[in-house]
Amino acid sequence: SPEVDAHTHDFISTGKKDSKFGFPLQREILFPHLQNAIDSPYLTLKGIHFHIGSQLHDNATHLAALSAALCIYRDVKEKLGYLLEDLNIGGGFGIHYTEEDDVKPYSYFLDPVMAEVSRFCAEAGLPEPTIVIEPGRSIVGEAGLTLYRVGSIKTIEGVRKYVSVDGGMSDNIRPALYGAKYECVLAEKTDEPKEDVVTICGKLCETGDKLINDAKIASASRGDLLAVFSTGAYGYSMASNYNKNPIPGVVLIDRGVPKQIVRRQTLEDLIRNEATL
Amino acid sequence: SPEVDAHTHDFISTGKKDSKFGFPLQREILFPHLQNAIDSPYLTLKGIHFHIGSQLHDNATHLAALSAALCIYRDVKEKLGYLLEDLNIGGGFGIHYTEEDDVKPYSYFLDPVMAEVSRFCAEAGLPEPTIVIEPGRSIVGEAGLTLYRVGSIKTIEGVRKYVSVDGGMSDNIRPALYGAKYECVLAEKTDEPKEDVVTICGKLCETGDKLINDAKIASASRGDLLAVFSTGAYGYSMASNYNKNPIPGVVLIDRGVPKQIVRRQTLEDLIRNEATL
Repeated sequence: SPEVDAHTHDFISTGKKDSKFGFPLQREILFPHLQNAIDSPYLTLKGIHFHIGSQLHDNATHLAALSAALCIYRDVKEKLGYLLEDLNIGGGFGIHYTEEDDVKPYSYFLDPVMAEVSRFCAEAGLPEPTIVIEPGRSIVGEAGLTLYRVGSIKTIEGVRKYVSVDGGMSDNIRPALYGAKYECVLAEKTDEPKEDVVTICGKLCETGDKLINDAKIASASRGDLLAVFSTGAYGYSMASNYNKNPIPGVVLIDRGVPKQIVRRQTLEDLIRNEATL
Repeated sequence: SPEVDAHTHDFISTGKKDSKFGFPLQREILFPHLQNAIDSPYLTLKGIHFHIGSQLHDNATHLAALSAALCIYRDVKEKLGYLLEDLNIGGGFGIHYTEEDDVKPYSYFLDPVMAEVSRFCAEAGLPEPTIVIEPGRSIVGEAGLTLYRVGSIKTIEGVRKYVSVDGGMSDNIRPALYGAKYECVLAEKTDEPKEDVVTICGKLCETGDKLINDAKIASASRGDLLAVFSTGAYGYSMASNYNKNPIPGVVLIDRGVPKQIVRRQTLEDLIRNEATL
């Protein structure tokens, strides 16, 4: 644990000292564990790893954590006589969920990281470790969108208009879990002006089952297709059968050609493991 | 929507005016919908329903909502000439998750409800509707417990001790989603004094994947069985395959005889619907 406090949602901040993840930086705690790994006949110690948090838009925390990790890399060589091969700097590269997200290219994070690795290793007279990254969300997040069908629409005069869809927290729990924000569009009304401000809510039996607050969309009608963007990460992978909703299928568009990569769950899937009493 | 604000977590409060659920109380909005249902050849209007919220420990909100619902029951007869058969007062009867929960018997909620129904109907000269309740959580919640195996234990001196288990938010998302509290015990160390204060964390890749903060337990070791109580509701039903964790099996103890009612997911279950590319 690099003991760096990334400025992100508390739940998705992983690099702090009070965390279930990782080892403390203190050498008297960390180094015996590293020595054990080095000495173990069952393990080959390849390197060290840190992960600061998720959905980051500032490289300062990566650089602060890198600094701590490079010192460990050096000290492991100097004090334990062991050269680590890999240094894994985790991920957390932010993606574009809404207009508020100030998305930076990989180079914004990685160029100063690589420069610092080179500078540090030259000064320490050490070979450069292989730098490993974990870019999961930044690869698949924006590549995905979720298509919903609009159901009933409830207008509470002077308060809010709710537009319900045939999914919700069972296929995307991030809004309820982290207050995550998304943008959406009525897929067959992209030419129409976005003149309505509505709350997109799901069909699950929870007040918190809202997908988007104050979404700007064209005028919605029952049966419209609603596309929510940037759901390629942590949507399908966190999906549940809450309220016995089947998990939707996933379709990959490969250079214009649709290919079903996850089959929609069937009723049989929902009860397969349940005993008849 | 009875426009009653139950004093419970914002996410599990359902009866407020600004809610995706229900109809507003205003007669000019509600009554045309009721008339439509009465006139529809496809529907038989059986009654009306309200749901205030979940995990309630005070009957005042049920009584306030009942009062609003009884007036509708009377007005539907008087103004639309239609006698409703059922009045569904929802659920929300709180259960015992922790010592802080001041659990009331059903009679605490239902006796004053039934008395008020009788009083109101006698005064209005109407037959009493059938009162329907939705006691889901209060039936199954305390009937269930989750057994975990203790994994690694991380002590951060002066900060906290983390005891990890082989499950987490994939089988119980309520702590992460609502800040829900639970109690636990080391199942094979129930005779030992609970002298340790630890955070029970799950194995999922999230800092927020903690099941219990500051749990008082006996001294834990890797391999111990940990029982978390009152997980019979909204555990299995909200479970996911996050991090490709299989959903655990469910065993019913029927008068001392164990019976597997949900089979543990297999690897095959996890990939059944996924295409080979």
